[in-house]
Amino acid sequence: MTHDERTDTQAADEMPWGEVTPDAARRLLVAAVEAFAERGYHATTTRDIASRAGMSPAALYIHYKTKEELLLRISRIGHEKALEVLRSAADADGTAAERLAEAVRSFVRWHAGHHMTARVVQYELDSLGEEHRPEIVDLRRRSDATVREIIADGVASGEFDVPDVSGTTVAILSLCIDVARWFNEQGRRTPDEVGALYADLVLRMVGAAPR
Amino acid sequence: MTHDERTDTQAADEMPWGEVTPDAARRLLVAAVEAFAERGYHATTTRDIASRAGMSPAALYIHYKTKEELLLRISRIGHEKALEVLRSAADADGTAAERLAEAVRSFVRWHAGHHMTARVVQYELDSLGEEHRPEIVDLRRRSDATVREIIADGVASGEFDVPDVSGTTVAILSLCIDVARWFNEQGRRTPDEVGALYADLVLRMVGAAPR
Repeated sequence: MTHDERTDTQAADEMPWGEVTPDAARRLLVAAVEAFAERGYHATTTRDIASRAGMSPAALYIHYKTKEELLLRISRIGHEKALEVLRSAADADGTAAERLAEAVRSFVRWHAGHHMTARVVQYELDSLGEEHRPEIVDLRRRSDATVREIIADGVASGEFDVPDVSGTTVAILSLCIDVARWFNEQGRRTPDEVGALYADLVLRMVGAAPR
Repeated sequence: MTHDERTDTQAADEMPWGEVTPDAARRLLVAAVEAFAERGYHATTTRDIASRAGMSPAALYIHYKTKEELLLRISRIGHEKALEVLRSAADADGTAAERLAEAVRSFVRWHAGHHMTARVVQYELDSLGEEHRPEIVDLRRRSDATVREIIADGVASGEFDVPDVSGTTVAILSLCIDVARWFNEQGRRTPDEVGALYADLVLRMVGAAPR
């Protein structure tokens, strides 16, 4: 792997917009995330976003017809990435406890590392129009189902003791998602440290036998 | 207790604005919470708030000089109420496990029952000016200290097994606060049911011996 390839991979991992091309479309998406996070979706105009990206409103319209199209794109990529992180942990080899711990670690890392995006994705869900919401709700259901599936596996194998599987699933995802609200880079813990602490807490929540 | 007194007490409990007088000031606060929750702080004007409350902008200025004053008032009352709920559980008689369970139950009930207010209070924290933020940050520190104190009691008495008291405190408060994001009245669980489930999950997080 050359140095350049490594940098690209890291950038794509650090910034979920690596897959957005061309570069102008990506810059506009990054600008939209910042603007929505700072002032809220409704207080942001496409003019604000274009100017933040150092572009003209006309240049924005080449890539996105409306402000809502930007929010939908951000929300779709954010939710797909979160689901991918969970699926990859669920599909790995290992006991239910190992897979649940890895799902929590990577989901928390994602929400800490991309807390600005995650906040926009979570708090502006109601700003998406009715015609786009079902697509996003479906992605959320699949994230939920992925975690529920690992917990059900652990209950079936006798590793976990969970009286309320669906309620516990909601609580675990909620715990991890809320990291995006309080996490800040100047805080005492790194995303990895929060991930490790949370994996331990979640194993306790499901009554996993201590290792 | 007469019927009217009972209704007033319930209203004050249901609506944390019961203490705001006169009635016009209270109506404006309720209108501000709704407007901020729907469109965000920055997209809301004092004119929007006045009109939602069925009042003129001039009438609003009698009670609140700026939009920020409304947000500060909402944030202060919301945080004070949340702290009061936690303190009352912490100061009650009982084992650390009983007090922690009650703190979680009542904190969750509050965040489910007042989810619109809680969202405004949490998501618009950065919209408060620098001069007002320290007061709110202090209230949050006291909520944090209240939960940490119960956990430390439980560790000292041998009821709990908690390797990372401050991290676990953050996680427990975060879990409860995020109820405000996902809770809705049309959902499958009542605030009491979520509170009971969460109290059980939190006792597991702190390694409390099963009853």
